[in-house]
Amino acid sequence: VTERARIARYFAPLTAGEAGSFSLTDDAAILTPPAGQQLVITTDSVIENIHVLAHASAAQFARKLVRRNLSDLAAMGARPWRYSINLHTPRGLADDWFAEFAATLAEEQAHFNMVLIGGDSTSGDGAIHTTMTCFGLLEGTALRRNSAQAGDDLYVSGTLGDAALALPMLQHGQPVPEDFAARYHMPEPRLALGHALKTIATAALDISDGLLQDIAQLCRASAVGATLLRDDIPLSDEARSILAVDATAWDFILGGGDDYELAFTAPPEKRAEIAALAMQLNLPLTRIGIVTEGDEIQLLDEYGEQVDIGKIGWEYA
Amino acid sequence: VTERARIARYFAPLTAGEAGSFSLTDDAAILTPPAGQQLVITTDSVIENIHVLAHASAAQFARKLVRRNLSDLAAMGARPWRYSINLHTPRGLADDWFAEFAATLAEEQAHFNMVLIGGDSTSGDGAIHTTMTCFGLLEGTALRRNSAQAGDDLYVSGTLGDAALALPMLQHGQPVPEDFAARYHMPEPRLALGHALKTIATAALDISDGLLQDIAQLCRASAVGATLLRDDIPLSDEARSILAVDATAWDFILGGGDDYELAFTAPPEKRAEIAALAMQLNLPLTRIGIVTEGDEIQLLDEYGEQVDIGKIGWEYA
Repeated sequence: VTERARIARYFAPLTAGEAGSFSLTDDAAILTPPAGQQLVITTDSVIENIHVLAHASAAQFARKLVRRNLSDLAAMGARPWRYSINLHTPRGLADDWFAEFAATLAEEQAHFNMVLIGGDSTSGDGAIHTTMTCFGLLEGTALRRNSAQAGDDLYVSGTLGDAALALPMLQHGQPVPEDFAARYHMPEPRLALGHALKTIATAALDISDGLLQDIAQLCRASAVGATLLRDDIPLSDEARSILAVDATAWDFILGGGDDYELAFTAPPEKRAEIAALAMQLNLPLTRIGIVTEGDEIQLLDEYGEQVDIGKIGWEYA
Repeated sequence: VTERARIARYFAPLTAGEAGSFSLTDDAAILTPPAGQQLVITTDSVIENIHVLAHASAAQFARKLVRRNLSDLAAMGARPWRYSINLHTPRGLADDWFAEFAATLAEEQAHFNMVLIGGDSTSGDGAIHTTMTCFGLLEGTALRRNSAQAGDDLYVSGTLGDAALALPMLQHGQPVPEDFAARYHMPEPRLALGHALKTIATAALDISDGLLQDIAQLCRASAVGATLLRDDIPLSDEARSILAVDATAWDFILGGGDDYELAFTAPPEKRAEIAALAMQLNLPLTRIGIVTEGDEIQLLDEYGEQVDIGKIGWEYA
């Protein structure tokens, strides 16, 4: 099958008749954002053996690719709208791979309400590389990471560390409960949360590189510090049971990344509103600390003692 | 150096203070196209050993990446405006590589009048992969490839086959005249031509996959055929001298690709206007055939005999 035939068969249907995509037959696509909405752009790659396991299925590539990107839109309070794809695959990769990749994109784009508008593909040596550029729409003001205020509460959504704890088990072929494995394979971009937070939060970002590293980014951008209570970090039952037998699990929870939860800050007078939002979204929104003056990130254990986070092996400088 | 520090040092300056880029410190970028202009999106990758030579310099990556993308904007009659970059580099690649890559992007974006707004980067195994997504602006109606009419003249810009003929010489380390090597390393996106053709041409596309394959694409999209005169194909002095000793050079000229010239169609009454445009742009615009009814692509030699293009080894189906 030629590249052109593959595009026509598997990818052109994903444009769903969107006029500006020209059914992927032209040199470029035309985007016309609806009046009064801003266009938000994000791009992320998913590479074999880095963001997905070696020999990941085409479906696993597609889901991780979509969700990594949409998590960035969620963090800004934007909603999905259009996307483009870049594919690099080994020469001679079976047609089945493309069929499964496109079928999964079809499910994902229906679920998240967006359509394909363009892309490119190459084949050659080496691992599978997939890149998505996602075009979101934003009404009102974007959630930013540079506007946290000393005195704000610091929250995270969902539970942390699950993907990072599941990963080595998946890599070693150990049995992993399906829900726990899904935290790695199929993260949930917190789009509804991001949308709601536009009028509640002072700052937000998605936790993709690890809680402490991402909180440090938010604080640096906002010129503030933060004090976090380790015991208040929301954990799944699986993470709790791993932690019960292995205290080094904290390194994965605090620094592992791949959570795709949102961290956000809000003044204390928003607590009731945030509790109501958590109920409405059926998603835990947990206060794990406070924003402080200065530039220090402190982590306190259950005795109020400072944990030496310099010893946890992530980029924190 | 951490990824964050590298982004801040080398890439954030390329945003040139563009507000929506947030200096590359946030989750996504915001694009606000000027009123009355359409946003045109294209994306292409440049991968080591596929689009550039093995061990290509960082500057060669950057130039090919920018120019491959801008050629697609040129083919639609759009002008460069904003871009994002995805980088995948081998673990431990020297900082010098990033410095040279960013310095070359700085030159290119100044030359082509666009700024960086976002991207992502990863490091791992394998070859260097670079991807650009380019956001162009379009006033008026886009040049399309689906609107050629039977009876139109068929033109190409510049000379064809140079990059494809230079490539094996470069791969084998043979001496190559600088201008000829530049056709491979540093193609010239025909932006001014594409802009002018919006009111002259009936259809256009850029020649990236090889003349015959791309003409076939244009004809298929327009539901027409074409008859090309091989002897009228514009050639450089270097290509002519190679052809004089090796008739297989035709395969490179007709099917080699990497030309990044524009092919376009226009009714015969536009001949004087096109000749004037060629003078004004100081760029040869050569009539190489005509658009026909039906769906056949014919290539005639200097005796008017049909050349069997099925024997030339490119994708033509």
